[in-house]
Amino acid sequence: MKHSLGILAVLLWSSVQIFAQTDWYNPFGKGEIPVQGRCWNEEIGAKYHRLPDRAEKVVRKALWDLSCQSAGLYIKFKTNASKIQVKYTVTSGFSMPHMPATGVSGVDLYMKDADGQALWCAGKYSFGDTVRYTYDNLTYRRQSDKGNEFCLYLPLYNGVNLMEIGVPAGSHFEFAAPSKKKPVVIYGTSIAQGACASRPGMAWTNILQRKLDFPVVNLGFSGNGRLEEEFFRLLAETDASLFVIDCMPNMTEDDRVGLIADRMAKGIRILREKSQAPILLVEHDGYMGYRVSDAERSRFEKTNEQLRLCYQELKQKVDGLYYMTFEELGLSMDSQVDGVHATDLGMFQYAEAYSRKIAKILFP
Amino acid sequence: MKHSLGILAVLLWSSVQIFAQTDWYNPFGKGEIPVQGRCWNEEIGAKYHRLPDRAEKVVRKALWDLSCQSAGLYIKFKTNASKIQVKYTVTSGFSMPHMPATGVSGVDLYMKDADGQALWCAGKYSFGDTVRYTYDNLTYRRQSDKGNEFCLYLPLYNGVNLMEIGVPAGSHFEFAAPSKKKPVVIYGTSIAQGACASRPGMAWTNILQRKLDFPVVNLGFSGNGRLEEEFFRLLAETDASLFVIDCMPNMTEDDRVGLIADRMAKGIRILREKSQAPILLVEHDGYMGYRVSDAERSRFEKTNEQLRLCYQELKQKVDGLYYMTFEELGLSMDSQVDGVHATDLGMFQYAEAYSRKIAKILFP
Repeated sequence: MKHSLGILAVLLWSSVQIFAQTDWYNPFGKGEIPVQGRCWNEEIGAKYHRLPDRAEKVVRKALWDLSCQSAGLYIKFKTNASKIQVKYTVTSGFSMPHMPATGVSGVDLYMKDADGQALWCAGKYSFGDTVRYTYDNLTYRRQSDKGNEFCLYLPLYNGVNLMEIGVPAGSHFEFAAPSKKKPVVIYGTSIAQGACASRPGMAWTNILQRKLDFPVVNLGFSGNGRLEEEFFRLLAETDASLFVIDCMPNMTEDDRVGLIADRMAKGIRILREKSQAPILLVEHDGYMGYRVSDAERSRFEKTNEQLRLCYQELKQKVDGLYYMTFEELGLSMDSQVDGVHATDLGMFQYAEAYSRKIAKILFP
Repeated sequence: MKHSLGILAVLLWSSVQIFAQTDWYNPFGKGEIPVQGRCWNEEIGAKYHRLPDRAEKVVRKALWDLSCQSAGLYIKFKTNASKIQVKYTVTSGFSMPHMPATGVSGVDLYMKDADGQALWCAGKYSFGDTVRYTYDNLTYRRQSDKGNEFCLYLPLYNGVNLMEIGVPAGSHFEFAAPSKKKPVVIYGTSIAQGACASRPGMAWTNILQRKLDFPVVNLGFSGNGRLEEEFFRLLAETDASLFVIDCMPNMTEDDRVGLIADRMAKGIRILREKSQAPILLVEHDGYMGYRVSDAERSRFEKTNEQLRLCYQELKQKVDGLYYMTFEELGLSMDSQVDGVHATDLGMFQYAEAYSRKIAKILFP
């Protein structure tokens, strides 16, 4: 009896071990680097950065540091596992006072279902020396024996190191190669980078990526999207299907409003030397406190007036120039957390406005 | 020359002092306590709690502790000041991994404009031993010389002590007396308490309060809205215009689903012994990860099935019973941060559904 109980214990232990075993996959393990949502993919290589190393000598330090955050990067893979784990380390603080850790430092997973629709997966998470996300009980309508395609969005306001994706041992797992389509390339501010989405999938650039089912590149840099010549030179290297220039929220300071016309004219010229892709200029979305403050209203109205004048002049000379107004963006009064940065409600409204506008330009 | 520079310096210093002087007002200073969004206002007195002290001996400790958080409390005041400051201390941690400090521990201000519409005010904030919010440049269409009415929502997931509201010295300032209308009283879970709004004004109970321009009482208690008899006895003390029972997200555990019918029947009987106010029963809003997980779907569907059966039986015997379905709540796939708790997008959708439903009941 004791003997057979012993054997039973060993058998139980072995099966627990088998069930507990996880195969871990590193996106930088071997083969083509599967990171999407960035240009210079091969040049950047095995880092979750958004600019190639040589850019460090070209752009201001503040912008370079922000470019090492993984905003807008995403990785697609196919698996038939009903459990997916993600673990990684981050390079700075987990959260900000107006943005939770799940948005600043979390990942976010969507499954493409049998109809090709992106469906959100709710994960359990813990933030520590290693950040861990676990997605359990994934059972819904598999596309094939190899499973469904998943899209994992990376943190919006943190750098990522040492990331691995785990599935129960023996499950099918393969990374998807990056899309060959020319991306929508977005140059912008904190709002474009993703502040203050509650989770990465809710940054408007990522919502747009899902809505259009089209590659989108996030070059939003917090307070540092300032229409600078050196950045336009980098932008001109990219093979975009469309450029979005959404920098006005960084151009409202008294000493910057006067720079808009010159910088934009120079920037558009630099882009047009290399690319004939459509360029969409976007007005300031407004400080949502402006309804109670003439001073706040005046700041963004002055900025938008400059952009409008500049657009009217440029469109005489430049083909493929488009324009989106404050009214077209259409953010509602409660779309921001602090009068500047969008919440998930604002991000949703942003994405609606952008997808309407961009679909008309790209798929007329 | 030295002498006149000295005089000039003194004059400048004096005027800085005058401009810098702030009159601080404590809601618990004198006269009627202006805290709104709670029952038992006089009994609770000079605390930012939601239940009277005697409840501590009646309810579970976890619920009592949550009732000491200021979710759904709001204070109205009238001022003609163009700058408003708020300072206070809180009783626990500033933030949670899925909810920022601005929502957990922040305040949120709306101005009623000349047309009676609530307009959001964007504040600057700092979280420290004392939490400070400053609203500058408030200039928009004053209702009278005494200024406009403001509504200040208190923190959703923290306790508040020692709060004061400051305006530049000499400005008109007066607290508004609480509304005499019978409130909509909401008994619920973490979602009703306000998780995970980015700021207090975006908790759905507070959006509802603005939309209906009607007093709303938030008795949401995180994981502790469990249809317990002792809580229904407290609820029955309140003079409500409408009761909302929105506890299903706390009733999905295997050992709780079977309790729904009994507890609800007993609870409704307790309410009806004291009040003929309409009672709205609300289904589970759904774990938004359910589209990719049959297991998750099954959990809330079982819960809602129990509630539906229970409602069908109760409505034969009880007048004024109303029901809101999962479909009527209508939360979209991206309405939650973690598969349970609503973001501002979800809160907006919640408030839309509730205001449609409640307006039909209260103002047919």
